[in-house]
Order: sequence, then structure tokens, then C-alpha cells
Amino acid sequence: MIAGGVGSLPFRRVAVLGPGLIGGSVALALQRAGTASVVVWSAQADELLAARMAGFATEESLVALARRADLFVLCVPVGAMLPVSGELVPHLAPEATVTDVGSVKAPLERELRPLLGDRFVGAHPIAGSERSGFGAARADLFEDARCFVVPSPDAARTTAVERFWGALGCRPSRIGAEEHDAIVARTSHLAHATAALLLHAIERDRPNALEFAGPGLRDTSRLASSDAVLWTGILMANRDEVRAALSSLAFETGRLQELLKPGREAELGEYLELARDARKRIPG
Amino acid sequence: MIAGGVGSLPFRRVAVLGPGLIGGSVALALQRAGTASVVVWSAQADELLAARMAGFATEESLVALARRADLFVLCVPVGAMLPVSGELVPHLAPEATVTDVGSVKAPLERELRPLLGDRFVGAHPIAGSERSGFGAARADLFEDARCFVVPSPDAARTTAVERFWGALGCRPSRIGAEEHDAIVARTSHLAHATAALLLHAIERDRPNALEFAGPGLRDTSRLASSDAVLWTGILMANRDEVRAALSSLAFETGRLQELLKPGREAELGEYLELARDARKRIPG
Repeated sequence: MIAGGVGSLPFRRVAVLGPGLIGGSVALALQRAGTASVVVWSAQADELLAARMAGFATEESLVALARRADLFVLCVPVGAMLPVSGELVPHLAPEATVTDVGSVKAPLERELRPLLGDRFVGAHPIAGSERSGFGAARADLFEDARCFVVPSPDAARTTAVERFWGALGCRPSRIGAEEHDAIVARTSHLAHATAALLLHAIERDRPNALEFAGPGLRDTSRLASSDAVLWTGILMANRDEVRAALSSLAFETGRLQELLKPGREAELGEYLELARDARKRIPG
Repeated sequence: MIAGGVGSLPFRRVAVLGPGLIGGSVALALQRAGTASVVVWSAQADELLAARMAGFATEESLVALARRADLFVLCVPVGAMLPVSGELVPHLAPEATVTDVGSVKAPLERELRPLLGDRFVGAHPIAGSERSGFGAARADLFEDARCFVVPSPDAARTTAVERFWGALGCRPSRIGAEEHDAIVARTSHLAHATAALLLHAIERDRPNALEFAGPGLRDTSRLASSDAVLWTGILMANRDEVRAALSSLAFETGRLQELLKPGREAELGEYLELARDARKRIPG
């Protein structure tokens, strides 16, 4: 169930730009909540068709879209946020609000804030899967998911955007853009990178080994099945933090190699036990 | 369903030593298949009680156990295989067969082969979860799982043990002990190690980050919730191969850091795409 339901939504007309996994789930969650007007925009004909077949109004023109909503939810890949916003902004009403779902926040603050001003309230719902596209979208994707919100100088807009994400089922959490990027570099981007590294390391040593793998490696490497183009954009946008996180991974790899020596069983056991304890702090 | 059912089991009386996650699942799969006699041994009173409450005959004495079965399935931790076998072997009938579920095979060949001779047919079913203990055991744990079998010099015994694991639902696959250990160092042990490394790297950089993690990191780090004592034994027993695998992980980490530089988007995309393709080769 959508917490609060349609009555609590602070925006009457919502435009979703980019109906992939996340954007499609935003649209479906709004549809389920009974939002009066949802309009879906995409630059891709197949995405527009999928949205239309799911019962959504669609729009191909950003100029026309600009007048059809009070809230615009940017769900395009990180690298497309700036060009899409650039086309949209000259036609937006002053009272329009823009939020997004981008996995990095500091680069978007730098790019979109000068363009959109106080109208922009960046967000990042921590939800998703390794699947992509409208076909993988789900109305319940955001239920009980944390949603980072980077405050705009306009406090009322910030609150309204928090209420919007809350109405989709999220638990909003305010954060600065730099702090956000440092955290997700570890909890999300490093995890994606590690899944890819692990597969490359196995391939390097034993090209035939993967056919013998079981459910453990399948889960550990799940994120490597994510969309490669999308993740190239995300990792590049946050590359300084991700490289720093990879340095810590390399440091820990060296530490573990030292513990895999005769007589260091107790320390190795403690290392594994600490990791086990740490994992208990991941919510859900 | 157990493939073939009870009629195809080449052993009438089976002893399961160590009814944890794997041993308990062996016992439950045998029970479901209607095996005439299953007896469970453990050095731990709570495990014996759990097995008795699930309807199994139990035995506390290895001396007495030696006469109660035709097949002995060693499901104790890797480090306990040798002492348990040492107590059992003086009392075993010459025609008795011993198999195991150890995650390493070369060290066990070195330790158990001189003691057990041709009676020993090492095995390793690729099944499990991060949970442990009899409470996590499941009769269907082995369904469609690959089971490595290291041939004994006695071909008939090797075939009989393959049929045994096949009757529990596994797909048996013959392999040399060294080759086995090199493969599982990558597909299983490196994956476990990486889950722990990842959590330690995050903790090193941002001790508060884990509370913001989502389903991606939860899956990537799932194996870190495994039993730390059990995995200390496994990683130590296969330490040379695991250290070599960790060196490959470190090499790939350095490669990825190089790709996270401006202008290398295309190479980064290719790197992620190759990992994505590799993951498709993991069965299931």
C-alpha cells in the first residue's frame, strides 16, 4: 500500500521522464496511488509504446511536456539529465518543481542547479534490481526503501518533494550532495564494481570455472548483470569516490592475504566474524 | 523428487556424521527417499537432540557407529575430518565406504587417503546457504546441484558413491583433487573472501555507511554471513589457491581504477559488459 495514498501527494500532475526500471516504477506507483494526472516522456519509441500499453498518457515533445505537469521526475541516465533539463527548462512554469533519481548527486547539483535554480530538489531512492527497462518496473519497488533528498534552498519545495517520495512508499532522508556521493560510492558503486572485478578475476585465472559456480557466486555477482551503459555513466560521474573506495578494497585484499598464512587462524576468524557483524547493520 | 528414489541407492545403511546445514540436509534427503537405515552421529549434544527430534536414529559413539552403516558421510568441518576418521577407521568393516562433503579436496586426499585407502571417495556437493546448523537443513538442498566426486582407485566404489549423490538429487561430476581446489578457490572461496573484503573496505572508509545500504549490497555481501569458524577452516585449507585468486582480484582492482579516468568511458563500458556476459555462464 502507498503510505498516505493520493490525498497526501503535494503535486496534482506528475511527469515521468524516462520510463525504465526506476521511472516505470515511479509511474506505476503513481498510477496505483490514483494520482490524477501522470504523463510519461521518453526519447525512445519502444519505451513510449510500453508506457502507453500500460495505460499511461505519453508525450514525445519536451516543450509540450513542460506545460503538462507540476512535478517533473527525471529518471533518464545520469549523463542525459543535463541535455533533457536544458530542453525542458525554457518552457517550465516558475512554480514547477523538478526532482530526479540519479545515483550521484554532487555532479547533478553542479550541472542542474544553475539551470533549474530553487526548483530542483535532487533525490535518490535506494531501490532497483539488476534488471532494466519498463518491463522490470514494479508499483511496489519503493516500498520501505530509503530515499535520499538533497535540500533545495526553497524549504517548501524540499518538503513537498519529500512528501512525494514518501507517498510512493519511500522513507525520505535529507543529505548533502557530497556526503551522499561518498556513501553510495561504498554501499552501491563499490558493490557494483566488486561484482564485475570478481568475475574478471575468475575469468583471468580459470576461464572454465564459472560453469561450476553455485548460488553463492550467483548472488555475490548479481549486480554485474546491471545495464553496462547506465553503470558506466554512474561510475564515471562518481569516479573520484569510487577510486578511493577501490583503494580501500585493495588494502583489505592485501590484509586478507597476510591472514591466510599458517598460524594466523585466530586473526582470520576474527576478520570474518567482524565482517559478519558488519553485515547485520545493513537494513532489511 | 529424489531422482531414482530409494531403489537406486547402492547403500542400505547410511551414517551421517555432523548434522549441520549440509549433513542435516543429507539426512533429510535420505529420509524423504525412504532409505532403510539412517543413523546420525555428532559430537555435539544439541545437534544429536535436533536430529532425534526430526525422527532420526542417533549414535554418540564412533566405535559403535562403525558397525551400523555401509556408507559413512563425513559432514563435519574440514578440520575435524581427520580426527573423526581416525577414531572411526579401526572399527570399520573392510567393505565400508566413506564419502565427505568437504569444500577442499587435496588436503583431505593427503590426510584421509592414507588412513582410509580405497574406501574413501571424496565428494563436494555445490549447495548450501549462509545459514548453518540442522535448523537450516532442507531435504531438497541438493536438487539439481552439481556434486564434485574425486575418484578412488576402486572404480566400483567411485561409481557407487556417484549413484548415492545422484539419488539425493545431485548431478555428479568427476574431478581431480587439485583441479577441484583451484576451481572452488575462484567460484566459492574467493566469493566468500570478497564479501568480507567489501564490508571491511566500507567500514574502513565510512563506518556509518552500511545503514544506508540497499538490496544490492545485501546480496553482494550475503556470503559474509556464513559461519566464521567453518570458513576460517576452509580458507586456510585452500590458502595457496585463495591467495592466488586474491592477487588476481587485486590486479583487476588496479585495472578498474585505471579505467575510471576521463576519456576511458568506452573501455569501462566494455569491462562491465564483459563481466555481464561472464555472469550469464553461471548455471541456474
